[in-house]
Amino acid sequence: MPLQRPLTGEPALIAGLSRLFGQPPPDVALGIGDDCAALALPGPDYLLWTVDTLLEGVHFDLSYFSLPQLGRKALAVNLSDIAAMGGEPLYALLSLGWPKARDVSGALAMGEGLAQAAGEHGLAIIGGNTVASPGGVIVTLTLLGRVARGEMLTRRGAGVGDLLYVTGPLGEAAAGLEILTRGLKLDADLQAPLCRAHLDPRPQLAAGRVLAGQRLATALIDLSDGVATDLGHLCRASGVGARISAATAPVSPRVKAAAPWLGVEPLNLALKGGEDYQLLFTSPPDNAPALYAAFARAGLAPPLPLGEIIPGSGVLLETAAGEKDIAGEGFDHFRLDLCGE
Amino acid sequence: MPLQRPLTGEPALIAGLSRLFGQPPPDVALGIGDDCAALALPGPDYLLWTVDTLLEGVHFDLSYFSLPQLGRKALAVNLSDIAAMGGEPLYALLSLGWPKARDVSGALAMGEGLAQAAGEHGLAIIGGNTVASPGGVIVTLTLLGRVARGEMLTRRGAGVGDLLYVTGPLGEAAAGLEILTRGLKLDADLQAPLCRAHLDPRPQLAAGRVLAGQRLATALIDLSDGVATDLGHLCRASGVGARISAATAPVSPRVKAAAPWLGVEPLNLALKGGEDYQLLFTSPPDNAPALYAAFARAGLAPPLPLGEIIPGSGVLLETAAGEKDIAGEGFDHFRLDLCGE
Repeated sequence: MPLQRPLTGEPALIAGLSRLFGQPPPDVALGIGDDCAALALPGPDYLLWTVDTLLEGVHFDLSYFSLPQLGRKALAVNLSDIAAMGGEPLYALLSLGWPKARDVSGALAMGEGLAQAAGEHGLAIIGGNTVASPGGVIVTLTLLGRVARGEMLTRRGAGVGDLLYVTGPLGEAAAGLEILTRGLKLDADLQAPLCRAHLDPRPQLAAGRVLAGQRLATALIDLSDGVATDLGHLCRASGVGARISAATAPVSPRVKAAAPWLGVEPLNLALKGGEDYQLLFTSPPDNAPALYAAFARAGLAPPLPLGEIIPGSGVLLETAAGEKDIAGEGFDHFRLDLCGE
Repeated sequence: MPLQRPLTGEPALIAGLSRLFGQPPPDVALGIGDDCAALALPGPDYLLWTVDTLLEGVHFDLSYFSLPQLGRKALAVNLSDIAAMGGEPLYALLSLGWPKARDVSGALAMGEGLAQAAGEHGLAIIGGNTVASPGGVIVTLTLLGRVARGEMLTRRGAGVGDLLYVTGPLGEAAAGLEILTRGLKLDADLQAPLCRAHLDPRPQLAAGRVLAGQRLATALIDLSDGVATDLGHLCRASGVGARISAATAPVSPRVKAAAPWLGVEPLNLALKGGEDYQLLFTSPPDNAPALYAAFARAGLAPPLPLGEIIPGSGVLLETAAGEKDIAGEGFDHFRLDLCGE
């Protein structure tokens, strides 16, 4: 009787809400449990739909985020969910909670960053609402996007033997967060890109479109909560396990170079740090030549091998000391997803 | 140069954001400035889209809201936006900020109320996300709905000479809020329905469908911020003015009866109090017989005359002391709308 005893974890909350909300109707191609919901409306496409909230003091700190950066990041986090389905973004609504004590010109500065980022992605912000917040700044965006029905990629579909890839090096956003929260000063050529990875992440929409449009992936998710957690989601949805080698995981060289300043194990930042907003996907080994060729044709950096899909469950990390299941050990335990983020 | 001086008001914020976000693309039938955005996707309908956030300490107080009531109300507020376009609701996503210090079983109690209300309206909750909130409870819902393209009603379209109606008596939610916040004890036959009007408002979806489907209204809005503010929106969007008579305004008899306890002018609660979530609409005088007949056939209480549309602008209130423009004097100045609520 799970509702009669106190529930202490967010997984229990998500599972409980999912039970309450029940099975979606047949025109919902994808409900709770992926990066977006997908609706089979009239026409050849699925309509993709996501919502995400960023809270001051949880997801951002205005002592080191500029307000335009906040606007850009709030959009990026939502765009990454569209990218994680292989989709393209169409429209957004903004629900903004703005502290009464804060000058509203700051909200316009946030809006400038948001409008700029929307323009870069051909997305129109077409409505929303504003609320006076009794606490900090609250930025919620909801996005609609589309993907051709035959092209949509989900967390399901990874097969045993598939290879695991990411669209870029891991751990930079988590290293940037360490630098920003601890006020560290590193060499400028490390400081700037690592901070930027946290402050201004780039949603991998182009890579998602290549993977979906050219049928190059079997499953796809974005890295919001860290490989350990997000790969755990993908494995659970696909009914498989994954194996990653500590020796070959694509830890960002910048994160390795910054390690002496950070005093944090680079591999931990790479696998358990959140918010890289790279895409993580699976693809059969035979696809590799076509995959690299397609990324090159699109002007994208080559995908980086991360490991492989194995029978069973969990996310096995191979180290010199042996194997360990790290599924769910993502850095950010503040939030877990029903479908968004 | 409005962005160079501090902006102090929410109207300036809305106007500033609207400028930043620019003109919507041609497939957006309705962008910023109505209760929902409307999208001309493939198929015979407009897709309606709204988002609304309820904040603890602003929109609700958990000392007198039960958690299931909170879930119901969060949905009602969004459903009312769909009703205000003459639409029917389809799907929802939930973005929930839940305080770490609060047992998550409370979030499930909120979810039960939400799921129950969704079931009553045939709406499916198909995703969302959860975030640990550093402050109070934050409930954001985004809804999609639909309306046949030829039927959609907006804030525009009121013509001089049209009559103004509301779907139910005014001021009950504001009276209920007074009772709840001040801990008043009234006769039970007043206390319960007035509190319920604030705690568990009923979105007027059926009335909206009758008005839209039978082409009985020229303009439509829902009453979230009070007649003074919401009728002001409708008049501005339609390029007209309105006249209301203090003597004949449909103040709820319950609010009049409660006035000795409340010590507040009933007319003020009726016209400037927010959150009645009745519909306010305009209709030519010739339509009146068809209007009353249609409401009766649908099993709805007859609409209540509120006043008339006149040339010019503003919301003129006629009292024994003369005429006064009350546009924008709604009770709730916490939030103003881009499109939602």
